[in-house]
Amino acid sequence: MNSLNIRRTVRAYSDKCLEETLLIEMLQSACRSSNTGNMQAYSIIVTRCPDQKQALAPAHFNQKQVIDAPVVLTFCVDFNRVGQWCLQRKATPGFDNLQALTYAAIDAVIVAQTFCVAAEEVGLGICYLGTTTYNAETIIDVLDLPQLVLPITTITVGYPKEPAITPLSDRLPLEGIVHQEKYSVFNLDAIDRIYAEKEALEESLRFLEINQKETLAQIYTDIRYKKSDNEFFSNSWLQAIKKQGFLK
Amino acid sequence: MNSLNIRRTVRAYSDKCLEETLLIEMLQSACRSSNTGNMQAYSIIVTRCPDQKQALAPAHFNQKQVIDAPVVLTFCVDFNRVGQWCLQRKATPGFDNLQALTYAAIDAVIVAQTFCVAAEEVGLGICYLGTTTYNAETIIDVLDLPQLVLPITTITVGYPKEPAITPLSDRLPLEGIVHQEKYSVFNLDAIDRIYAEKEALEESLRFLEINQKETLAQIYTDIRYKKSDNEFFSNSWLQAIKKQGFLK
Repeated sequence: MNSLNIRRTVRAYSDKCLEETLLIEMLQSACRSSNTGNMQAYSIIVTRCPDQKQALAPAHFNQKQVIDAPVVLTFCVDFNRVGQWCLQRKATPGFDNLQALTYAAIDAVIVAQTFCVAAEEVGLGICYLGTTTYNAETIIDVLDLPQLVLPITTITVGYPKEPAITPLSDRLPLEGIVHQEKYSVFNLDAIDRIYAEKEALEESLRFLEINQKETLAQIYTDIRYKKSDNEFFSNSWLQAIKKQGFLK
Repeated sequence: MNSLNIRRTVRAYSDKCLEETLLIEMLQSACRSSNTGNMQAYSIIVTRCPDQKQALAPAHFNQKQVIDAPVVLTFCVDFNRVGQWCLQRKATPGFDNLQALTYAAIDAVIVAQTFCVAAEEVGLGICYLGTTTYNAETIIDVLDLPQLVLPITTITVGYPKEPAITPLSDRLPLEGIVHQEKYSVFNLDAIDRIYAEKEALEESLRFLEINQKETLAQIYTDIRYKKSDNEFFSNSWLQAIKKQGFLK
């Protein structure tokens, strides 16, 4: 469990190449993960080519790790391949709906995370790009994704540029995450207690100063995850889901 | 990477108790995973109590591992806690939408899968219950999930009843999963090649005989993942998403 406990997200990569044989080995390990009915209704698009990275970058708001990482992996739901198999085998596929999208999306994330664990175990560093579902239509165009293929998450992977010297990022105490038997809504004191350590971090105080905000929560609601942005990207995500054929 | 490569889903558990300290340790490791903006917009409901397992079982179509496993974990998106924190800190939360649901659902699955890897590393066995999004409303009721908390996936965990003697379950060759730079739609020959090994398995041939079907694909489309079922459960999933406040 050690590599799970000391991990950090890595956004700056060295020039060291990620060998194809190692990449294949990790992808194979990832595909051993649990998946719905063993349909493996997912695909992984490997991007190494600089032109393709340049084309993908805007979809990820030009985060520099897209260009700098030796490898970018886009994990997609894929009922195109499954559907083709069905049609070639006198079977009528019925995966053009929200439930099929959901279970395959869960499977795609499971594969992605197993890949990340395997990568971190051998000294590689990864970074998730949540922007995948913000700008899915651009990614669909750049990667030529056909009907019933939808990008769910992206990771950049490579050897870390620098040794890990920064402290681990903070996490809430388990009290804020884990409930016994039933969910118990937090009272005012519990919320204060759960967030106390996070709010007292030097980094948090620095954010307040830089952004001229009174509370850390405001950094989330007014700057990083604004309601209007969430709603705008909800709409574009819904369009992508419909465009790829998962919702009428 | 070894434990990733030899893993199997475990549905039958021994009577051996899962110690609370080990469970906590694994949950802590799981929460070190990447997550969106370090908001940790997820919760994990632990079910050990037999009554609660009985209450959850119907939602999982009475799969017996729900009753037999020492521990059942339901991984949920949770913007209730985040929202409360915001309101207590003069911030206006805007997470009642599809994009927030999506990134938190990805995070919930990442945590679940990291937990599974940690569990398998210490000799425990896990089983994912995809039924979570089929019958989410029942789970919401049984676990008392408030607004903006939605169950995404469930795992059962415990020590395997029997040593792993069965062969690993099959997987498609990477040719069927991994695309270089752009998605290339499979032609007829490629589909035949990708599915050849799976279709030739003794287990697959036995399924055909038992179910009186001509092709393995028909087992998926006519029995296991029927279009009408997928559509029915798409509708109930959409209702649950709306009920919990993520879609108007």
